Amino acid sequence: MNINKLLKPEKIVIVGASEKEGFGGDTCRNVMTYMFEDKYYFVNPRRSEVFGVKCYKSISDLPESIDLVVICTPVHTVEDILQEAKDKGAGAAVVFASGYSETGTEEGIEREESLIATCRSLDIALMGPNCAGFFNYNDMVSSFAFISEERDRSGSVGFVSQSGQLALSMMDSPKMKFSYAISAGNSSVVTMEEYLDFLVEDKDTKVIAMYLEGIKDTEPFVEALKKAAIIRKPIVVLKTGRSQKGQEIAASHTGSLSGTDKVYDALFRKFGVIRVDDLEELMSTCMAMAILKKMPDKPKIASMNLSGGETGICADLGEIHGIEYADFDLETVNRLNDLLPEYASPNNPLDMTATLSYDVDKYAEALDIVMIDPEVGLVAVGYTLLQEIADPAIKYMTQSLEKVMRDPKAKPVVMIPFTENTRNAEYSERLEKVGVPVLPTSNYAFKVLKNISDFVAYDASEHDLEVKVPSGNIGKINPLSESESKKIVGSYGIPFPRTEVVKSLNQVEELAKEMGYPLVAKIDSPDIMHKSDAGCVKLNLNHVDEVVDAYSDIIENALKYKDDAVINGVQLSNMVKSGIEMIIGVKNDPQLGPCIMCGLGGVFVEVFKDTSLGLAPVSRSEAEKMVNSLKGVKLLKGYRGSEPADIDAFVDAIVNVSKLATEHMNSMTELDINPIFVYEEGICAVDALYVRNS
Amino acid sequence: MNINKLLKPEKIVIVGASEKEGFGGDTCRNVMTYMFEDKYYFVNPRRSEVFGVKCYKSISDLPESIDLVVICTPVHTVEDILQEAKDKGAGAAVVFASGYSETGTEEGIEREESLIATCRSLDIALMGPNCAGFFNYNDMVSSFAFISEERDRSGSVGFVSQSGQLALSMMDSPKMKFSYAISAGNSSVVTMEEYLDFLVEDKDTKVIAMYLEGIKDTEPFVEALKKAAIIRKPIVVLKTGRSQKGQEIAASHTGSLSGTDKVYDALFRKFGVIRVDDLEELMSTCMAMAILKKMPDKPKIASMNLSGGETGICADLGEIHGIEYADFDLETVNRLNDLLPEYASPNNPLDMTATLSYDVDKYAEALDIVMIDPEVGLVAVGYTLLQEIADPAIKYMTQSLEKVMRDPKAKPVVMIPFTENTRNAEYSERLEKVGVPVLPTSNYAFKVLKNISDFVAYDASEHDLEVKVPSGNIGKINPLSESESKKIVGSYGIPFPRTEVVKSLNQVEELAKEMGYPLVAKIDSPDIMHKSDAGCVKLNLNHVDEVVDAYSDIIENALKYKDDAVINGVQLSNMVKSGIEMIIGVKNDPQLGPCIMCGLGGVFVEVFKDTSLGLAPVSRSEAEKMVNSLKGVKLLKGYRGSEPADIDAFVDAIVNVSKLATEHMNSMTELDINPIFVYEEGICAVDALYVRNS
Repeated sequence: MNINKLLKPEKIVIVGASEKEGFGGDTCRNVMTYMFEDKYYFVNPRRSEVFGVKCYKSISDLPESIDLVVICTPVHTVEDILQEAKDKGAGAAVVFASGYSETGTEEGIEREESLIATCRSLDIALMGPNCAGFFNYNDMVSSFAFISEERDRSGSVGFVSQSGQLALSMMDSPKMKFSYAISAGNSSVVTMEEYLDFLVEDKDTKVIAMYLEGIKDTEPFVEALKKAAIIRKPIVVLKTGRSQKGQEIAASHTGSLSGTDKVYDALFRKFGVIRVDDLEELMSTCMAMAILKKMPDKPKIASMNLSGGETGICADLGEIHGIEYADFDLETVNRLNDLLPEYASPNNPLDMTATLSYDVDKYAEALDIVMIDPEVGLVAVGYTLLQEIADPAIKYMTQSLEKVMRDPKAKPVVMIPFTENTRNAEYSERLEKVGVPVLPTSNYAFKVLKNISDFVAYDASEHDLEVKVPSGNIGKINPLSESESKKIVGSYGIPFPRTEVVKSLNQVEELAKEMGYPLVAKIDSPDIMHKSDAGCVKLNLNHVDEVVDAYSDIIENALKYKDDAVINGVQLSNMVKSGIEMIIGVKNDPQLGPCIMCGLGGVFVEVFKDTSLGLAPVSRSEAEKMVNSLKGVKLLKGYRGSEPADIDAFVDAIVNVSKLATEHMNSMTELDINPIFVYEEGICAVDALYVRNS
Repeated sequence: MNINKLLKPEKIVIVGASEKEGFGGDTCRNVMTYMFEDKYYFVNPRRSEVFGVKCYKSISDLPESIDLVVICTPVHTVEDILQEAKDKGAGAAVVFASGYSETGTEEGIEREESLIATCRSLDIALMGPNCAGFFNYNDMVSSFAFISEERDRSGSVGFVSQSGQLALSMMDSPKMKFSYAISAGNSSVVTMEEYLDFLVEDKDTKVIAMYLEGIKDTEPFVEALKKAAIIRKPIVVLKTGRSQKGQEIAASHTGSLSGTDKVYDALFRKFGVIRVDDLEELMSTCMAMAILKKMPDKPKIASMNLSGGETGICADLGEIHGIEYADFDLETVNRLNDLLPEYASPNNPLDMTATLSYDVDKYAEALDIVMIDPEVGLVAVGYTLLQEIADPAIKYMTQSLEKVMRDPKAKPVVMIPFTENTRNAEYSERLEKVGVPVLPTSNYAFKVLKNISDFVAYDASEHDLEVKVPSGNIGKINPLSESESKKIVGSYGIPFPRTEVVKSLNQVEELAKEMGYPLVAKIDSPDIMHKSDAGCVKLNLNHVDEVVDAYSDIIENALKYKDDAVINGVQLSNMVKSGIEMIIGVKNDPQLGPCIMCGLGGVFVEVFKDTSLGLAPVSRSEAEKMVNSLKGVKLLKGYRGSEPADIDAFVDAIVNVSKLATEHMNSMTELDINPIFVYEEGICAVDALYVRNS
């Protein structure tokens, strides 16, 4: 399958060419508007001409071979046309028709399976079905099914969407400039992961935008993410499904299988993918990154405004969105004090006062002073650029920016408006030309700044750029007993207290003496998960008689609790002193593989949900980030004068659990190590539950 | 002082009238554009005509008396002009000049004090200084200092701002429609609280918008908030200062004293004031409330969209912003199933599919079906209205909405776009006419929905609509000893274990026997706050000898810790069993009075910051809301099968502490009751620290 035949075809044919509104007519009009005449043919058995262009009766009548067939006709005609196109050399197709798996009906699903099989046997790279086609703005190829006024949208954002409506909205936004815009529909033959890979490889694409409902094949998806992470090409993803309702909608919309949403977050963190929450954030993050001539070299921001009100808003929005404002150094402060009116205070965010916006040289000087500050990575100038220009300030400010940005050492600059409006095209373009994007309205603008900061702060070398996907069906649930679980976990370097499983009173007496006191006795049974509730845990046993009694009680209670329980015996363990109570867990995601969770134990995880996730394999610095992103990390770092706990040992444990999970991914459903006590030196796990998948 | 002379003057005079750009020229041009000729005069000693209008040499030359003088001349001329205007009957003035307290200089501060004194003695209601003037859109009075193209912005949002730039930006936004737009500047004579009160009383103002940096007088501010809460007039406030940086900027900008920010949140919650984070949210929340013909009768939302992608975005944004989606009832689901294409699923958020937008009747029917659902309070239709109309869908959708909204029983409807753009004026106006606001882009739109939902959910009768402001200087810090603190707190019905202060070994022996065991012994000294660190706490004393030893040790350790400490003796208390550890605290805010805090004790408050605030006096239902807004409330409600704790008793304690704090507000700086154990039945406080202000 050759995706170049689809996205970079030399010759295309529109089947179902027409002059009527609808797929056929709109596609033909787009083709005629944007493509050279010698690159396309029209086919319709009932017409000899469409909009004055010769129309052939059938594909077989075409005078030369073609690469791509764009099928505008109804669903039942599609497969025959594919065959015909193949005979004329086609290696690719676009299918607009719906009526496939997205209907959720048996008929639709079968129809899609048949279509996929046909494409495989004909070696055809098919876009769709249930899609709106694509634009290739570099080679000027259009197969897009929706019409608009003629417009130039050539640029460097490569966009692929599983929603036709969102593709359309994005293309209708005057600020967007694309290398490719792809409405992938059900993406059942050429998949989202293949489009992504194409755009990562494409030299004309600087930033990739995706609207993603779910992926089909994890491995190629991850490979593409990895390539992008290494070459630092930004990928910005709008993936719905954060909410339960959103997941259901994504599943029913294009029939995508959508993994657990938080696991996607872990995936995106690993590869430095920027995740956004809506279309405007997607568009403006991509365009900002495309317009900037270079990325900031550090994630700290300077904010420069013309009024106290706007400066206050920037201060607050910065805090709300987690932006780091640079602390100006003394020289910056002194130089600003000399330049600005007496009543201005040289803080960051900075209120320069409105007077400065009417003086090209002074405004430029202020920019220079702030840019040269060593802490500043990016400068955000506040100004509400409107469509209608009443205030001449923008004229002077633009001149200042043109002057300053000429210097190749100039740091990146963005403009932040405070009310919604279509931005004046002339000034937007002048600013864009010197690398200054006009961001969307303040709240969105700060989301964009945060996205850029996160992209800058990401360092691929800190991450293990792999994802391990289980091959089997990991749905089954088959718990091991505690001692079996501990044996496996212990073999990966997680320390437990000495534990022995005893099966007779003789053994009890012998081992109790050997192990020393205090001891803990617990049932060892794969059938009794809630051991305390069943009366099968006895703590703080200080004498052999107590241990003997505990043994008898536990066996008795276990059989009372579940009379057919499989009982391996009773575990005797040395009691350990308590430390800071933590947990490590694993859930094996069917699509993305083992996902490691860590957190503080007890109410912290259950009530405060203070946990963090990392997708296996987890590198040491990924594990460190996981621990540091816990709110409760303060407790580990020495709280109220107590000594700091051994975070290093806990981080090692996470890495070891990740190894375990990766090596066992085909046989493990989940794993819980709860609690693990973290001490000033070292750690000790107390309980473990390993759930097998067999 | 008569604020009507300022905001509703019959006759005004512009002093410093001019044809040049700047305050004088721009104000004159605005006056001529918007006001009737017989309502204004121009004065300038150096001109006899301005833009063809007669110009007088001085105010005294005017042929009749005036209400308002608008002073466009420099700072040093202002006070003389005020005197002259007063002589001509003026009761009000607008002063644009800066150079007052906002400069932060001694000279500026003195100048402002002098200006205030002059206004007081002349009984002049002054707007400014350092302001941009105002528009009264009802009576068409303009004193605004910045020029724009002629435009009709008459409407029902009353806006007052401490930032001229933000006032200007708001007025430049094509979507805004005002009753009043006021740039109040330093608001040193007529205060923000007086403008607020005016707008609350004003019949033409339906919604109030404020940009607030700080208030001067709490009482009139609170009175105005109370009036608005009772008559349900929405007040939407943009108050910067959430962040430390923001607070500093607000303080330096107009010299406003800005109270602790979180206390403002508590104030706003009490009175149902909507707080927003930036200008766009302020504008669009106000306009949405102004355009809706009625507020929803319940806070639940239905979302209706034309594509799966948009529906997924709405599902996720709803969850992010805390929107409650109604669950459609069976009849709604059945009727939607009948109406919608086979492949659509009748969920909420609802993907109706694009086909529906091309059918006026079907779209209207879908709206009807959803509106009639008993759970739905408001319907949000998703559609990206652009300035240029390419897609005819909006034509049909607007017709459908016009049809449906004709019914007086129709529920409120808003439109949510997904990309930024200036909205098409024709369709915006048609929709607005039938009460359908076009909200800003999705992320902002959901903020607006949340604001409306919160306003609808607010019930004034649940709140004690008072705020008690201390009269003295409450900055001093003078702690009481623990036993003194407990005596005061205990007298407000907060139970403590029996506590006796002993001063001799004889007393120790006698009381220990009488009180019973186990006992706790602690130093009682206002000079030793950290009793445990000083070795001045002995727990779990079970015999008179242990108590005697403890007594001696504690006295010795106390003197070792601080040899000149005032020592009242040693407290003996009965030890209490531990329960769920909570805290109640009070901080007496100089501007807004005692603010009550509650939370879970220990790490929960210190690491997780899980606390909630209520401004005293706190009603019982306010106290309930405080407790219920804690994340940790789950622990109180019965966690992992444990019995629920006595939340009622804890709520009572909060109300009692609020009473204490209110009655002691002139003498108390702060109070900490930590811990309070909450049991299955009842509560018991263990320690208290009362800090006096004398």
